[in-house]
Amino acid sequence: MTIKVFGHKSPDTDSTGSPLIWAWYLTEHRGQKAEAVLLGEPNTEAAFVLKTWGFETPSIISDVAEGDKVVIVDTNNPAELPDAINSADILQIIDHHKLTGGLETKGPIDITIKPLACTATIMHNLMGDNADKMPEGIKGLMLSCILSDTLEFRSPTTTEQDKALAQELAADLGVDLGAYASEMFEAKSDVGAFSDAELLRMDSKEYTVGGKEFRVSVLETTAPKLILDRKDSLMESMKAVAAEDGADQVLLFVIDILNEEATLLVPNDLVKTVAEKSFGASVSGDTVVLPGVMSRKKQIIPALKV
Amino acid sequence: MTIKVFGHKSPDTDSTGSPLIWAWYLTEHRGQKAEAVLLGEPNTEAAFVLKTWGFETPSIISDVAEGDKVVIVDTNNPAELPDAINSADILQIIDHHKLTGGLETKGPIDITIKPLACTATIMHNLMGDNADKMPEGIKGLMLSCILSDTLEFRSPTTTEQDKALAQELAADLGVDLGAYASEMFEAKSDVGAFSDAELLRMDSKEYTVGGKEFRVSVLETTAPKLILDRKDSLMESMKAVAAEDGADQVLLFVIDILNEEATLLVPNDLVKTVAEKSFGASVSGDTVVLPGVMSRKKQIIPALKV
Repeated sequence: MTIKVFGHKSPDTDSTGSPLIWAWYLTEHRGQKAEAVLLGEPNTEAAFVLKTWGFETPSIISDVAEGDKVVIVDTNNPAELPDAINSADILQIIDHHKLTGGLETKGPIDITIKPLACTATIMHNLMGDNADKMPEGIKGLMLSCILSDTLEFRSPTTTEQDKALAQELAADLGVDLGAYASEMFEAKSDVGAFSDAELLRMDSKEYTVGGKEFRVSVLETTAPKLILDRKDSLMESMKAVAAEDGADQVLLFVIDILNEEATLLVPNDLVKTVAEKSFGASVSGDTVVLPGVMSRKKQIIPALKV
Repeated sequence: MTIKVFGHKSPDTDSTGSPLIWAWYLTEHRGQKAEAVLLGEPNTEAAFVLKTWGFETPSIISDVAEGDKVVIVDTNNPAELPDAINSADILQIIDHHKLTGGLETKGPIDITIKPLACTATIMHNLMGDNADKMPEGIKGLMLSCILSDTLEFRSPTTTEQDKALAQELAADLGVDLGAYASEMFEAKSDVGAFSDAELLRMDSKEYTVGGKEFRVSVLETTAPKLILDRKDSLMESMKAVAAEDGADQVLLFVIDILNEEATLLVPNDLVKTVAEKSFGASVSGDTVVLPGVMSRKKQIIPALKV
């Protein structure tokens, strides 16, 4: 049976590239039959990365079947995985997020979770000397995953290890790191084709804070104006998205990659309170700028208060 | 703040030795202040191992306080950990059991779970070259953990890696592996001082199967007669233990280490059904022998049916 390797729903670059990297490693160096699959359409940045490095978009699956052999990367959160995940035969988990609870395995398996910025960096460690044998395309994916998850080393999640590896890969590939990162971020910023609801759900995770269920959405962009020009209809759309997804409120943080700040949309008093209590912001109007805020994981989630 | 390193409740040799091994490593090679603690009295084998290698019994703690810095080894199951575990600051988890779900961390942390027989073997891997610097006592603990968890390589959980490491450590220490293992197992078999209820809870984990809550207890021994001579009062005691612990039934497997078989006590029709459906056993009387059954993790739990 071919092993399915996948990341989280709403695949970003790390959740698109890392499954391809690990499927390559399992196949070439572990003698296992493995293929990368996706749990949804890759975002525009991930699609750009696939094209740049010569990969077809992996098959998109909607669920897993009982007994399917799977490797989970870049998440350990059942809410971001297929409904039937706990009935699959989970062989391995490689991740860099907090332990969420809820995922169960039938026996002891191989789990590596590290506080690094990027799943692909952990994979590089796990490969040992076999990492030297990565073909150009796999190296390109690895570089892309690191640049994406660290926002070109601007995110506070960045570690020396992520940075050193990306620089080594870029040098090895003869890629101008800064220029390539800009191309990736421009691809991510190209959001014209998406509806408001799609934007709100594109990079979004649910968290319960003070008894309220929040859908915490971020949009990382080099062109925040393209999104903020749509703020009225985005705020209008939040109500329907929250209702459909069983959340109390959508929080949309527009992350300006180049200016290293976030703009939070403030559609109502609940979000105003969140902005004030969580970030000490003083809010007047329907947006508030949060200087230096780049990371949902490190800066937004730990701060959230109602 | 000193980091507390601990394993599971009812500490066996691996859950007693591995915290000492890892606290040594964190202190000596990671520049962190760490101490091993226990979540209960070590069993007779673990007490023998501590004495043999010149260690005091670590402090026994009953719970953790909010914000305590902790490293969890040899389990990831909240039921086997202090009540307040999810309020502690969990820094790292090193384990070789199935992912249970229920444990949560506040941010991404370092988690290594491997399908090896013994936590101490995983620690040896994680230490890299620093493993060469282990003092004699730490090496002795590591050898003891592996011999205990593999039942001197008889358990089907044993991997080549566990075995090779134990043999290397024994050679290095000048220890006769077989003779030392026999001493350890004799210490474990010395159960005269324990009440029936204590024996039933000594090495016991709860599992839900077919809607029933089972307390699955094993007693690994070189002298099964010492335990089986007490079977009537053990079966009588099962009712009170199950009632107190909120379980439907205690299943007691007496593992005969030398003859490589388990004897299951059969106090009633429920356990008779379990024996028949799970192990294809034909039961007449109040015990049934299950040839080759040595491992709760590999052979008992995956087989359990009602």
